[in-house]
Amino acid sequence: MPFQIAIIGASGYTGAELLRLIATHPEMEIAGLAANSKAGQSIAQVFPFLRHLDLPQLVTWEEIDFSGIDLCFCALPHKTSQEVISKLPKTLKIVDLSADFRLRDPKAYEQWYGNRHAAVEMQQEAVYGLTEFYRDAIRDARLVAGTGCNAATGQFILRPLIAERVIGLKDIILDLKCAVSGAGRALKENLLHAELSEGSNAYAVGGTHRHLGEFDQEFSALAGEEVRVQFTPHLIPANRGILATCYVSGDAQAVFGSLASAYAAEPFVEVLPFGETPSTHHVRGSNFCHIGVTGDRIEGRAIVVAALDNLTKGSSGQAVQNANLMLGIEETTGLMLAPCFP
Amino acid sequence: MPFQIAIIGASGYTGAELLRLIATHPEMEIAGLAANSKAGQSIAQVFPFLRHLDLPQLVTWEEIDFSGIDLCFCALPHKTSQEVISKLPKTLKIVDLSADFRLRDPKAYEQWYGNRHAAVEMQQEAVYGLTEFYRDAIRDARLVAGTGCNAATGQFILRPLIAERVIGLKDIILDLKCAVSGAGRALKENLLHAELSEGSNAYAVGGTHRHLGEFDQEFSALAGEEVRVQFTPHLIPANRGILATCYVSGDAQAVFGSLASAYAAEPFVEVLPFGETPSTHHVRGSNFCHIGVTGDRIEGRAIVVAALDNLTKGSSGQAVQNANLMLGIEETTGLMLAPCFP
Amino acid sequence: MPFQIAIIGASGYTGAELLRLIATHPEMEIAGLAANSKAGQSIAQVFPFLRHLDLPQLVTWEEIDFSGIDLCFCALPHKTSQEVISKLPKTLKIVDLSADFRLRDPKAYEQWYGNRHAAVEMQQEAVYGLTEFYRDAIRDARLVAGTGCNAATGQFILRPLIAERVIGLKDIILDLKCAVSGAGRALKENLLHAELSEGSNAYAVGGTHRHLGEFDQEFSALAGEEVRVQFTPHLIPANRGILATCYVSGDAQAVFGSLASAYAAEPFVEVLPFGETPSTHHVRGSNFCHIGVTGDRIEGRAIVVAALDNLTKGSSGQAVQNANLMLGIEETTGLMLAPCFP
Amino acid sequence: MPFQIAIIGASGYTGAELLRLIATHPEMEIAGLAANSKAGQSIAQVFPFLRHLDLPQLVTWEEIDFSGIDLCFCALPHKTSQEVISKLPKTLKIVDLSADFRLRDPKAYEQWYGNRHAAVEMQQEAVYGLTEFYRDAIRDARLVAGTGCNAATGQFILRPLIAERVIGLKDIILDLKCAVSGAGRALKENLLHAELSEGSNAYAVGGTHRHLGEFDQEFSALAGEEVRVQFTPHLIPANRGILATCYVSGDAQAVFGSLASAYAAEPFVEVLPFGETPSTHHVRGSNFCHIGVTGDRIEGRAIVVAALDNLTKGSSGQAVQNANLMLGIEETTGLMLAPCFP
Repeated sequence: MPFQIAIIGASGYTGAELLRLIATHPEMEIAGLAANSKAGQSIAQVFPFLRHLDLPQLVTWEEIDFSGIDLCFCALPHKTSQEVISKLPKTLKIVDLSADFRLRDPKAYEQWYGNRHAAVEMQQEAVYGLTEFYRDAIRDARLVAGTGCNAATGQFILRPLIAERVIGLKDIILDLKCAVSGAGRALKENLLHAELSEGSNAYAVGGTHRHLGEFDQEFSALAGEEVRVQFTPHLIPANRGILATCYVSGDAQAVFGSLASAYAAEPFVEVLPFGETPSTHHVRGSNFCHIGVTGDRIEGRAIVVAALDNLTKGSSGQAVQNANLMLGIEETTGLMLAPCFP
Repeated sequence: MPFQIAIIGASGYTGAELLRLIATHPEMEIAGLAANSKAGQSIAQVFPFLRHLDLPQLVTWEEIDFSGIDLCFCALPHKTSQEVISKLPKTLKIVDLSADFRLRDPKAYEQWYGNRHAAVEMQQEAVYGLTEFYRDAIRDARLVAGTGCNAATGQFILRPLIAERVIGLKDIILDLKCAVSGAGRALKENLLHAELSEGSNAYAVGGTHRHLGEFDQEFSALAGEEVRVQFTPHLIPANRGILATCYVSGDAQAVFGSLASAYAAEPFVEVLPFGETPSTHHVRGSNFCHIGVTGDRIEGRAIVVAALDNLTKGSSGQAVQNANLMLGIEETTGLMLAPCFP
Repeated sequence: MPFQIAIIGASGYTGAELLRLIATHPEMEIAGLAANSKAGQSIAQVFPFLRHLDLPQLVTWEEIDFSGIDLCFCALPHKTSQEVISKLPKTLKIVDLSADFRLRDPKAYEQWYGNRHAAVEMQQEAVYGLTEFYRDAIRDARLVAGTGCNAATGQFILRPLIAERVIGLKDIILDLKCAVSGAGRALKENLLHAELSEGSNAYAVGGTHRHLGEFDQEFSALAGEEVRVQFTPHLIPANRGILATCYVSGDAQAVFGSLASAYAAEPFVEVLPFGETPSTHHVRGSNFCHIGVTGDRIEGRAIVVAALDNLTKGSSGQAVQNANLMLGIEETTGLMLAPCFP
Repeated sequence: MPFQIAIIGASGYTGAELLRLIATHPEMEIAGLAANSKAGQSIAQVFPFLRHLDLPQLVTWEEIDFSGIDLCFCALPHKTSQEVISKLPKTLKIVDLSADFRLRDPKAYEQWYGNRHAAVEMQQEAVYGLTEFYRDAIRDARLVAGTGCNAATGQFILRPLIAERVIGLKDIILDLKCAVSGAGRALKENLLHAELSEGSNAYAVGGTHRHLGEFDQEFSALAGEEVRVQFTPHLIPANRGILATCYVSGDAQAVFGSLASAYAAEPFVEVLPFGETPSTHHVRGSNFCHIGVTGDRIEGRAIVVAALDNLTKGSSGQAVQNANLMLGIEETTGLMLAPCFP
C-alpha cells in the first residue's frame, strides 16, 4: 500500500507541482489536500490541468485527520507555515517548502524576514533540505526545510568550490535569471503577462534578497569563516527555470574537477563537459540540474553556469526527493520524468 | 524484459517527444536510434535535455539491426517515410508518425501530397491510428499510421457528432490555434522567435491544409456521404498545444450528450461540464484531450472547443498509446504523466 | 500653439497608449492628467517608459481646470465613465474610450452591462467612434464614443459586406484571437504570465461578450433587419493585437471587391492582394488595420482575416484619430508611426 | 526638400528598423533600397509591416545611382560590408551598421573577426559611432562605424566610471541579457521560437564575444592603460532589448554621481534616481537608454544596470542619430518615439 500523503497549501504553484509529481509516483497517494482559502472546491476547479486525477476535495488544514498520514508537505507562505506546523502532531513527518525553517539562527531569521520566529524549537530541529549535501540527516529527520529555489541553484555551484577552497571567497558574484513562477501565484502588476513578457529587469538588487540568508549560513559554515556573496536576481519572461551565472576567481580546470567529482554519483546533478553551457530549456519540468564550467580569457577567472527548474529541483521535486528519503523509498522514485522540450 | 524499441527519425520534435515518453515507460527500452543527418552524434548533442539517459548513439537507419526490435517508431518526413518503411522487414511492427499511410486512397494521397505513393500495398495494410476509434484494429495491426495532429483534434470533436447525426453536415467550421512545434524543427523565417512571438496569423487558408484529406476520408466514411468541413489553422506564439474551436448547427445539449457518452470510458479524453471551456495550458506535455461544449445565443448553434498537446496526444503520445496496444501492454502505460503547469 | 489635452484615467493601458501617441503628436499637448487611484504620483512612477516626457503630475479628475482644455480623453472603466462625464463641462469636447456611450438604446445598454444608464441624454448625443464610417458626424461631435476593440475589428470586415449584401446574413461567424492588453491592467490569475503564456483558450463563449451589443446595433442598422453574428474571442499569449477570422457565405471575389473598394482611399485600412493573409505582427504598435480575403475549396464560402492593434487602432489610436477630426486637425496627424517589428 | 537616403542591406532586422524610424522622420526620404538576395521584391513582400509606405523596390546595391544620395546606411554583415563600402563613391556619407569599421587596429580586427581587413585605409578614417562620446567627430565624419549593441550598452555604463576612475579597473564584470533580434534574421535552430521561448542560456562564455574588441579598444584608451572586462551575454526569450548588469568595485554614490552628471544633458540617456533599476520593457522600440545605480550590502561594491533596445539605441536608432549629425539636422529629429509598452 502506498504511503498516505497530505499537502497543506495545495492551491499555489508549489502545491500544484507536488501534485503533478505525486500523480505518477508509485509509492505515494494523496489522502488529504488543504487550501484554506479554497476549501470546498475540487482540484479541477483550482487546477484544471489535474482534472483527470481522482483526488480528495480541498479542505482546511484543520479538517485533515493526520492519524493516517505518513508524511505532510507544507506549501504555505512563510510565517503562516510556522504557525500551522507548530500545531500539527509532533510525530508527523513534514517537508516544509516555505522559508520558515531554513535558517537555524532566530536572529538571522528575524533579520531577513522581519518577524520574530514563533517556533524556535522546531527551527532547531529542522534539517536543511538540500538533499545532495544533507542526505543522511534528511533520512532521519522529522521536519525538513526545503531550500529557496535561488539558494539551491547557487549552492549547487558553490558548495564544492568553497568546501575545497578552489576559489577565492571574497569576490563571488551570482547573477541569476529567474522565471516568474518563483514569485508564486501572487497578483501583482509586474507579474502580468502584459508587463513581464518580452523583457527583463533586475530586482532585489544590492544584497536584499532573502535567499542571501541561506547563502550566508551555509557558505560560512562550509568555509569556517564569514562568506558574503553578491547575488542579484533578474526576472525573465519564462514560467519555469533558473539560470545562475557565477563569476569566481580560481583555476577553471580545478573548478571543473571539483564539481565533476562532487556530482559524479548524483542522479540529478549533471556536470557538462568542460566549456559547455547549460540552458533552462533542457531541464524544464524535471528534477535535473545541469552545470557547466568555462574559463575566461582573463587568467585566474572562471565562470560556472547552472540551470534547474525552480518548481521542481528548486522546490517541489526537491521536496519529493527528501520525502522519499524520509519514508525509506528509493530516492529517485517518481522523479525521473524527462524534461519537457520543446 | 522490456520490449526493444527503435526510432527512425529521432532528431526531430516528434522523435524527441517519443524519447521523453519512453524515458519513463516501464515496458519499453530504446535499442536503436536513427537520424541519418546526425548519425554519429550522441543524443546529448542533439537533444541536451535527454543527456541524463543512457541511450545508444545515433546511427543511420540502415545500420540498425531490426532482428531484435519488437517495434519501430518512424518519425520521418512524409515521402521519405514510405521509402524507408518499404525497405524495413515485412514482419516488423511499425508505428509511423508521418502522413504517408493516413490516406487509404492513392489518389487522395497524390492530390494532397503531390507525389505518387511509392508503397501502395502498405497504404492498404495500414490502420489509421486514432486510438479511441480504431482500437481493435490497431491491436492487430502491423503498421499503424499516426494521424495528423490537427486531424486528431478535429476528429475528437466531430466523430461522435457526425456518427450520431446530432449536427448538420453542411456547415461545419473548424478554427484551430496551433502551437509552433507542429511545424517541426524546420528553419523558416516565420518560425523564428523574433517573427512568431507576440502575434498570430492564419495559414493554409481556404481549404488547402493537408490534414483536410484525413477529415474528408474519415467524416465521409462515418456519414456515408461526402462531408466537407471548413478548416483554418492559425499559428500562435506557443510551443505545444492545439486549441480547436468548432462551430456547428445542432442542439447544444445533444452535442454535449453525444460527446460525454462517447468518451465516458476513455482514459485520455475528458469532456468538461457543460458550458466550461478547455485551455491548452491544462494539457501541455500530457496525453490528455479536454473538450468543452457551449450553446450559443443563436438557437440551434453550438460551439465545441477541444485542447490537446500536438506533440503528445497529437502525435508521439498517440504513437506510444498505439504501440502499447500492438505490444499487448496496458494502453495507458507510460502515458499518465500529468500536464506541465504553469 | 498646440491644443491643450486632458486625460482622465491615465494609469491604465489605454491611457498609457494615449500618452505614447500624443508624445510625438505635433499639435497636442498634455495639460492635465487624472488617475484618482494614483493621484499625487508622477508618470515616471506609474509608467516608467514615459519618464523622458515632461508631463504634469497625476491628480484627481476633480482637480483639473477644464477651462483651458480643448479636448478631454476619458479612459475610465464603463459605468465610472458615465458618472464622471456627466459632471464635466457641457461644452467640453470629449472622446470616451469606455463602453458607456457605444450603445444608443438604454435598454440594450442595460442588457449588456447590467446597470441602468445614468446619462441617457448624453447617450443619445454621442457619436459612435468608428472613424471610417462616422467621419462626418465625428467632425461635428462634442462627445465621441470609442468602439470596443473587438467590435472595431469585426466591423472593418463586415460593414461593407453587409451594407452591399455580398454575403449571407444568417451564418456569419467571427472567431477572434485577442492579445491580453485588451483585458486591461486588471489583476487576475488568468492574466498572469505564468498562466497565460504558452497557451490559448476561448472565453465568453456562446454569445455573451459585451461587444456583441455593438455588432447587433451596427449590423442591424446597416442591413435594415436584425442581424446576429456568432462571435467567440480567444486569449492568446501576446500583449497587443487582434486577429479576426470571419467565415461568411458569398462569392470570395465579390467579398474582396467590396472591401477593396470600401477602403481604397482609407489611410489606415489596407486590403491585401487577394489570397494573402495578415498577421498581428505586422500592425503592432500602429494605427493600421490589414485585411485579407481568401476563397474556400467549398464553393460559395469566403474567409476574411483582419489584424489590428487593440490598443492603437482598436482604442487609443482610434481615439486620437477622432480627436484630430474634432479639433480640425488633419486626420492622420501623429498616427503614421510604423508598426514595431520584430 | 528632405535628404535623400539609401539603405544597403535593407532586408535584415537593422534595415527594417532603419525603415521604421525613417518612415516618420521629417527630413529623410528613402531614395534607394538594396538587398541583393531579394532584389526585385517589394518591401511589402519582405516586410509586410511596412506595406503602407510608398518605397522603392529592392534592387542590388550596384543598381543604385548614388549621385543623388545624401547619405547611405549600410546594414550588411561584416566582411561583406567592407567589400561593398570600399566600392561606393569616396565622397558619399556612410553610416555603417556592421562590425567592419569599429576597430581601428587592423590586427585587433583580424584577431576578433578572423579575416584580414580589406579596407584598412577606411578603417582609419572611420569614426566610432557612440554618439554621446564622439559627437563632434561624427558631425564632421564621412564614414561612421555604428557600435555593437552590447558594446554600446556596456559603454554607457562604464565610460564615465573609467574616465573618472571612480571604480576599480581590475574586476569589472558585465552580465548581459540579450533579446534575440540581436542575432539577426539568421536561420538557426536555437533562434526558433520552439527552442528559445520559455528559457535562457549563456553564450560566448569566457571572453570570446566579438564586442569585447570594442570594449578593449575604448576602455583602454580612456584609462590610458590596458583594461580587460569580463563580459558574458545571455539569450532571453524576448525580441528587443539588452539588460546589462555591471558589477564594479567603488563607492556607489560616487558611481551614481559620475553617471548622473555625465548624462545630465543627454536627450536619450536617463539616469534613474539612486536605488531604482531599469527594465527593457520601458525602452522597447525607442532610442532611450535607462541606467540605474545601486549599492551592495558589501561595502565598496556597486551594481549598475542599463537597459536599451538593441535595434534602436543599440544600432539603427544610433545610426539615425549619427546621420542627423552628419547631415546637420537636429540630433533628436525622428527619434523621440516613445517606447512601446505594454
